[in-house]
Order: sequence, then structure tokens, then C-alpha cells
Amino acid sequence: MLTNNKLIKELKKNLTPDNVLATPEERYVYAQDASNIRDINRLPDAVVFVNNIEDIQKVLLTANKHKIPVICRGAGTNVVGACRTDHGGIVLNFSRMNKILEINQENMTARVEPGVIVGDLQKEADKLGLYYPPDPSNLAVSTIGGSIAQSSGGARTFKYGSTKDYVLDLLVVMANGEVLRTGSNTIKNATGYNLGSLFIGSEGTLGIVAEATLKLIPKPECRKVIMAYFDTIDDAIKAVNGIIEQRIYPTTLDFMDKNAIQTVEKFYPSGLLCDKDAALVIEVDGFACAIDYQRDIVVSILNKCGASAIQYSNNEEEYERIWTARRSSMGACAKLKPNVTTDDMIVPRSKLSELVRGTRAICEKYNLTVCMVGHVGDGSIHPQIPVDYRDEDEYNRLKKAKSEMYELTARLGGILSGEHGIGSEKRPYISKVVNSTALDYMRKIKKTFDPNNILNPYKIF
Amino acid sequence: MLTNNKLIKELKKNLTPDNVLATPEERYVYAQDASNIRDINRLPDAVVFVNNIEDIQKVLLTANKHKIPVICRGAGTNVVGACRTDHGGIVLNFSRMNKILEINQENMTARVEPGVIVGDLQKEADKLGLYYPPDPSNLAVSTIGGSIAQSSGGARTFKYGSTKDYVLDLLVVMANGEVLRTGSNTIKNATGYNLGSLFIGSEGTLGIVAEATLKLIPKPECRKVIMAYFDTIDDAIKAVNGIIEQRIYPTTLDFMDKNAIQTVEKFYPSGLLCDKDAALVIEVDGFACAIDYQRDIVVSILNKCGASAIQYSNNEEEYERIWTARRSSMGACAKLKPNVTTDDMIVPRSKLSELVRGTRAICEKYNLTVCMVGHVGDGSIHPQIPVDYRDEDEYNRLKKAKSEMYELTARLGGILSGEHGIGSEKRPYISKVVNSTALDYMRKIKKTFDPNNILNPYKIF
Repeated sequence: MLTNNKLIKELKKNLTPDNVLATPEERYVYAQDASNIRDINRLPDAVVFVNNIEDIQKVLLTANKHKIPVICRGAGTNVVGACRTDHGGIVLNFSRMNKILEINQENMTARVEPGVIVGDLQKEADKLGLYYPPDPSNLAVSTIGGSIAQSSGGARTFKYGSTKDYVLDLLVVMANGEVLRTGSNTIKNATGYNLGSLFIGSEGTLGIVAEATLKLIPKPECRKVIMAYFDTIDDAIKAVNGIIEQRIYPTTLDFMDKNAIQTVEKFYPSGLLCDKDAALVIEVDGFACAIDYQRDIVVSILNKCGASAIQYSNNEEEYERIWTARRSSMGACAKLKPNVTTDDMIVPRSKLSELVRGTRAICEKYNLTVCMVGHVGDGSIHPQIPVDYRDEDEYNRLKKAKSEMYELTARLGGILSGEHGIGSEKRPYISKVVNSTALDYMRKIKKTFDPNNILNPYKIF
Repeated sequence: MLTNNKLIKELKKNLTPDNVLATPEERYVYAQDASNIRDINRLPDAVVFVNNIEDIQKVLLTANKHKIPVICRGAGTNVVGACRTDHGGIVLNFSRMNKILEINQENMTARVEPGVIVGDLQKEADKLGLYYPPDPSNLAVSTIGGSIAQSSGGARTFKYGSTKDYVLDLLVVMANGEVLRTGSNTIKNATGYNLGSLFIGSEGTLGIVAEATLKLIPKPECRKVIMAYFDTIDDAIKAVNGIIEQRIYPTTLDFMDKNAIQTVEKFYPSGLLCDKDAALVIEVDGFACAIDYQRDIVVSILNKCGASAIQYSNNEEEYERIWTARRSSMGACAKLKPNVTTDDMIVPRSKLSELVRGTRAICEKYNLTVCMVGHVGDGSIHPQIPVDYRDEDEYNRLKKAKSEMYELTARLGGILSGEHGIGSEKRPYISKVVNSTALDYMRKIKKTFDPNNILNPYKIF
């Protein structure tokens, strides 16, 4: 077993010393992520800023030799504890590997380092009339590496799919320092196993992404967002089905419940109507000539389904105002209590009303406030629960409520995460929704790829 | 080692006897697929029609116990020899597992058995206003199971992606008879590793799909196909880039070269213009109000890029006539000589002109006729070469030409298959395009999933 001092010395020798952080204060900063799990069990042994693939290899050679955990970190926005250091180890900080290496307009591809911020890539692609659709709600800070690790989605997944649908090729450093290229810089690939998809969503447990080639698409000409209010959540969900039946394929079919609407409006006044039980946020996009056509059909369906008020964007400013309101719910919730947790349950859409009503009932039972937002088109909800961790009783009620929410999700044929991942927070619950044979084969893959269990160990399962 | 007689006896005992075929004539029929590889090395030992998941499990338990290969077969349309029985074994015939178990309009999903024909699923989805986009050109006969095994694409991949983008969940029987569920009946999934994507494109070497849940989308309201002729292939490819730069996102950007045009027109007169060097087949879809808008932009770009003639469909009959012509090239080629081979190389689109010109030059060098079609938007071509296998000299020239075509593809940063797979035909060449570390990990996965190497052995690598 290597002492901490010797580890730091070896890392500083192999990498530039000022890329290695080792004071207790510095290590404390990197023990936790946005998961906001109450207890910090252990600090990392060191934090290393990597600058290139060789740096990653050097760290892995050291770590694999001494069997030290390696935890990757982009912006640290993960909400399930995937970046936590509960077993110590070396945090690999990717914030300096943040270059967009190439945007190839003809191939419609982008080659990026993992530390590139999702929103930055979108802005650069936009300048060339290209589009990177995945839009996790923290896209202004979260990174492509994190999106790949957690299989991130976002509001536009309904029409455009999630991160996995845009990754063409990955350069991956394996636990033993070997470098593997998963695919090719081509739109399709039926040449051997799809290793790329195995790394996407593996939360840094199978290999470390050093570079990604992403697919871009032509940017739609226009977009418009429609906000519709309903007196009951069931009516809102019925309206979603009505829209799809009319062959409209909205970019987003998002949702806010009464608590979410009121909380956002309280802290970030945006003109939301606070007396309604639920709101849908529906974006349509496409050619300018078809935008009003889509809006008119959507509005007519919304009216038929009992919408009690409808607003829509007439320009980019109004568009941004509505989306900013929708995306502010987590921030607004954080103002209600010292802590806030979010979640990410997903069910077949036909079970969504039951999931929403059941989750509300569970929170009421445990006397917890819940603001619910979600991607109703995907059947996915994010219940945001403000709490005070110092209040032991409330903390215990939260834990019980979460467990019941996962039981409910499993009963409805759903799963524990559509786009956040499992991390450490949901690890105790994964066997509720993944069958034991599948879990066995996941563990076998883990063992094959990382025999010393150094890559983000004890996450997922 | 089990004798053939004992194997047949055991299979007939475990399954209904009339589901087991064992005469030499019957076995001969199932030794080969549409790959049209010249030499048949070995017949299968038996052919078993499976009716349900239990049948699959029974066969695998026998096969795994006695280490006998198991080769899955849907419609047998594979063109790279993935269904061949070069090492004997049991052919699992899925033609009786052909039920669409459910189309759920609210969830926009279809649950199907693997023997369902792709075109049949599309017709049933269509009745509900839903759409299953993947369209391998043999969709009138090829099966969903085969599409999953080979990661099939089709002309619409450019806009809509390929089979892998529509598989939500698989029920898979593993080599030892265990049953594994890969995902969930939800649109997104970030709950553990993406095992589903590992099976897609694995050509039956990792597990046997017994049931698939597929994603459907709302069916576009309208579609129109535009056929544009060019005097040089380079102009045609330049036009493709021109279209994308204008933010048009066509459903298909397909291509036929002069030989393909002339051969189709000779055997299936369709009004194609035979004096042109290349034609693009461009489909646009969407709302009726935006169809003519897209057509007008596309036509104006085509004219600017030097198109020498443009035709387009004004109704469904004309639409079908153009697509039937495009899809007939393989059949037309088959009329030129006793045999015909196709191929499936894909490069970044910026390298496509070089690939097309280089492939033509190689075929000229070896005095082979080549009809070239392809999905030019994806950077993919299918060179179809009519040959006579009885002519030893021509056969040897074909083999040399293919090897050089793969060398060229690798040099251009491409890969050996975008949508057909590797099978047995391209197995000797895979290391030209997949790095050795990636191949090592693929082999490790194979060994972990199928330690006795019974599942379609000696395919891919």
C-alpha cells in the first residue's frame, strides 16, 4: 500500500507538479458533487488536472499499479454522486481539456476534448448552421465528458434523442493505460461490436474518455415554444397523447406542476400563472413556413383537452423567458431550504399519471415539499425536494420517501434513471429494476475491463 | 463428441419433432445465405424451427453442453455470410416467431418477435399514424431479428438513424440458456450499462434475441422524392454538401452511378436517363405545407451545382416508381452474370469522391463491371459486381479487387461496413480498420458471454 505522500510524490514526478493538488482544503472541494448527499465519507487522496491523453495514461499506470481508485470529474454537476470519492483515490479534473479540436462542416461532425462545455459546443456549431441537440438543463456549465459518462438527455430527447445518439467515436484510456478507439468518424458502423455505447452511461467505471467525435445535424430554421396550463395533471398528460396522435413531433413535451410553477414565480418572476395545477412546455421546430401550422394544431388540441390558458413565444426573447423559467425550478427550490435533491424516474408514458400522483402522495405522507418538473413526452419526471439535512427527522423521512418512489417506479415498469445515472445514490436500488442476469453480465464486463476495480469503484452496482 | 444421429434424436426429444429438419437436402438449403460466397464448406447438422423463447433455451442447453455451434437465421438475406454454417452446428430458424405482439400507440412502441418482417411492422405501424424508419432495401423480406443482428440501416439513416436508434429493450437468451433483459420499455435509460447496444450488430455471437421492444415515431405527413442527374460524380457529391449547408435535412441522399442507372433501365425500364454519369435520389418529408418549400430549395441548389436534369414525384405512384428503380439495382445486376456480390464501405463524407473514383479504378484494373449505388449522405457505397464464379480467373480477380477496395477504405479513414456487418466474408480484413486494443476487448467480451464459443463462431473476428 502506497502512502499518500508517496502517491503525491509519484504523481508530481510523472506530471507537472502544479497539475497536482494535495492540501486537505483542495481535496475537500473535490470530495462531493452536485448530488448533495449529506455525508462526506472520505476525501480524495489527490486531484490531478489532466492536459492530454498522455497525462491520463500516466495517472492510470500509477493507479492501476497501486490499486488506487480514479474518479473523473468534468464540471462536477452530477446529481447522483458519480463524482464522489467515498473510497478515496485520485480525482481526474478535466477542466483544462476543454478544446473543441475541430468542427467539420462537410462531415457534420465535431471532435472535442471531454472538458468542453455542452453549451459552448452548441454555440460554435450554431455559427456554421449546425446543431448539437442534447440539452441537459445545466448545459451552461456541464461538460461533454460528463454527458457521455451519464448518458445525459434533456428536454429535446423526445424528438432528437440523447447523448448516445450523437457519439460516433471515442478515444478511451483503459484501466491499464491502453488506448482504444471505439468506432469511426462515420455516420454508421456495423464493423464489430458497438464498444462506444458500452462506455456511454458507464459513469467512468469502464474506461476514461480522452476525446469524442460527435455527430451534428443541420440546425432547424425556426422554433417556437408554447406554454399551456391545466387544472389537472391528468388533462395535461392526455393533451400530450392528443398532440402525438395528430402526427405532430414536438422538440419538447415538458411539464411543471403547481409547486414548481409557484416556486419559480416566487423567486424568478416570469409571468407564470400560479393558480394552475400543471403546465406543459411544448416546443416545435422546423421550417418557418410550418411553424405556425404546428402551433395552430397544438393550440387547438390543447383547447380540446381542457387547457385553461395558453401562452406562446413570438420572438427569441419570449422563447428564452419561458425556457429560463422552466430551467429555474431547481435553483428556485434551493431557495426554500438549505438543501435540495432532485431525482430522475422514467416510466412508459401510459403510466406517467400514476407516477406523478403516486410521487405526490408519497411526499405528502412524509410531509415533504416536492416541485415536479419533467419530460412528460419521455415519461420522465424530476421531483425536486427541498430539505434541511441538519434536521435528522426530515432527512430520514426523505430517505424513506425516495425508497418508496423507486418501488413505485419499478411497479409501473419504469427504471431509476433516464438521464442522470445511478452513481452512489441509487446504487442500493438498481436491482429493483435491472434483472439479476443483466446485472451479472454488467459485473462481468466491469471485471473484464477493469480487473483491479480502480475506475470509479462502487458506483452503479 | 455427439454423433449427428444422437444430436437429432436429442433435439427431436426436446422439441416437437416436426420442428427439426435433418435430411441432407434440407440441411443444404440452410448452409448458405445471400452472401453468395462461392464455396460451401460444411452443411449444418440440423435446422430447428423455434416457436418461443423456451425452444431457444432448449436448443442452447443442448448446444452448450455438447459445444455445438448455433447459427440464427431470419430470412437469410445477409450478404456477408453471417448465417453460413462453415463449422456445422444447429441453424435456428426464426420464420415461425413472426408475431407483432403489441403496438402501443400511447407509448409509441412495438413489441415484436425476431422473425417479424421489417416491411410488415412498418405497414402495421402506419395504420396507427406511426413510423418505424429503418429501411434496409430488402425490407419486404428481411426480419427485425436480422436487422438487430447486423445493425441494419437503409436509405433513411441519414435523417432517422439505423436499427440501433430504435431498439429500446431486448429479451436475450445467453449461450448457457439464461435469459437477460437489456433495457426497459422507456424512451431513455441511464440505469447501468447499455447492454442492448452491445447485442445490436453482434451478428448472433453474444446472445440470441427472443423479443424486441422498438421505438416508433409519429409518421411524417408528406414525402416527395427528387431525382437529379449529373455529368460527373464529383458534381453530385458537391450538391449534397450544398443541400446540407442550406439547413435542409433530407430523409435520404442516395446515389446511383452510370452503370447502375443503365443496368436498372435495361432490365426494369423506369424512365431513368441513361446518358448521365450519376444520379442523386433525394427524399424530403414533413408537413405538407413545407414539402414544396424544401423541394424548391433543393432544386435550386441542384441547378446551381450543375444538375443536367431533375425529375420529382408528384404522387405516391411516381414516388414508388423512383424508389423501385433505385432498389432494383442488385436484382438488375444479377441478370448480367450468374452471380453478383455487393459491398458496404463507408467513409467520412468528405472522402466519398475519392472512394467512388478509387473503387471504379480498382474494378477497371481487374476488368470487373461495377454498378455503384449508395447512401451518399452517410458517406456509404454499395459496389455491386456481377461475376461468374465458374470462371476461376474472374473469381480471383474479384478477390484481389475486394481486398484493394478495403485497403482504400481504410486509407480514407473509413470502415468495412456501415450496415451489412462483417460475417465471414470480411472477417480477414477487420484488423485493417479496427484497432487491435478494440479487437482485444471485443474478444474478451465474446469469451465472457460465450465461453464455449458456440454462438455463431468464427464470425466477425
